[in-house]
Amino acid sequence: MGIEVKSWELAFVPHALASAGAVMVLVWCIYLRGGLAWESSNKSLVFNIHPVLMLIGFIILGGEAIMSYKSLPLRKEVKKVVHLVLHAIALILGIIGIYAAFKYHNESSIANLYSLHSWLGIGIIVLYGIQLKFKVIDPFKPMDIWFCGIFYPGGAAGLRRESLPWHVVVGLFVYILAVANAAIGFLEKLTFLESSGLAKYGAEAYLVNFTAIVTILYGALVIILYSAI
Amino acid sequence: MGIEVKSWELAFVPHALASAGAVMVLVWCIYLRGGLAWESSNKSLVFNIHPVLMLIGFIILGGEAIMSYKSLPLRKEVKKVVHLVLHAIALILGIIGIYAAFKYHNESSIANLYSLHSWLGIGIIVLYGIQLKFKVIDPFKPMDIWFCGIFYPGGAAGLRRESLPWHVVVGLFVYILAVANAAIGFLEKLTFLESSGLAKYGAEAYLVNFTAIVTILYGALVIILYSAI
Repeated sequence: MGIEVKSWELAFVPHALASAGAVMVLVWCIYLRGGLAWESSNKSLVFNIHPVLMLIGFIILGGEAIMSYKSLPLRKEVKKVVHLVLHAIALILGIIGIYAAFKYHNESSIANLYSLHSWLGIGIIVLYGIQLKFKVIDPFKPMDIWFCGIFYPGGAAGLRRESLPWHVVVGLFVYILAVANAAIGFLEKLTFLESSGLAKYGAEAYLVNFTAIVTILYGALVIILYSAI
Repeated sequence: MGIEVKSWELAFVPHALASAGAVMVLVWCIYLRGGLAWESSNKSLVFNIHPVLMLIGFIILGGEAIMSYKSLPLRKEVKKVVHLVLHAIALILGIIGIYAAFKYHNESSIANLYSLHSWLGIGIIVLYGIQLKFKVIDPFKPMDIWFCGIFYPGGAAGLRRESLPWHVVVGLFVYILAVANAAIGFLEKLTFLESSGLAKYGAEAYLVNFTAIVTILYGALVIILYSAI
């Protein structure tokens, strides 16, 4: 590399960005937007669950799952379990977060699934689930040749070797899409708020935009420091 | 790989997606949104220049510039020039496209630079320009150690070798950001139109959302087929 920085010297940066992003989305949803609630007459509190779970639960935990496989000083079998469990928790929190968005829409009589954000979101959560599903069950059915293998030490070694590049490529693609869709979501919500009178150059607008930028930087570093290189 | 597809067998797909995306954005801006104009009392026609130039000029030409370096059956020196010239044209059309957005805002008394789309856009075009600038001039000043080199056969071979990974990593990062920001832009414009009464499930909404999806698939294939692997 042209500048003398080893990638492990930057290894703490994504975790620091994750912490910053988590604090920022909580300050936004709890302090500025009134808090979180699963049941409330103020439907905005139901919506607020969505960005909190999608950022902290799905994007940040998903990123930690990706990083854990490269960075933890553990045996490979243990790292696989950590990687799998973190991704499984991220998927579950992501599904609950998406459900919260539908619940808010339904209880507020807002149409579902008309925006690019919602379409991409459904596609991402389905692909994410497929990546995980093929790691956990049914590894030897014909369609499953794609992703079966590394959690099955008994599986054919060749199959495992051959499916891994697809797991990595599809995984990176899905994760990049997830981070981009988070940025799209922040912009969409802020556009709604600004069209209802929120100041375009106010503190809340800056907070939301910078949360999106922190999210993008986190996702980029997860991939650059821990996966692609 | 787990399925028997060689990457060169898919090599035509990004070009097909680029053609589809170009037609879709032209149909949208010319047929459904009234056309393109640099000077007009109908300021929407000034805006329409923005998505057309950013998608066809910046994203598609930029992607072709990336692919050209890997795919053309030419000598390396010739491929470098093609790569450079395509990127330079993409940058120029991108700058004109961004100028059209400012011109539309200024002539319609809309605030500039408040949205995430605009912030990311400025960051992307600056990074894009830096990538190109360090390839073309001033290759030996201290700051330029990063990106100098491959267009200077006289430059120190070590410097060239060391700077290339940074050019590729930063280039991929900027290109992914550009594609994501295009999707954000389509969503932002459609959200404005829908809040002014455009049907959420109408033909135009589907056209714009699918243009964004074609753009994302194009960007993903440029990177997966021609760069990352």
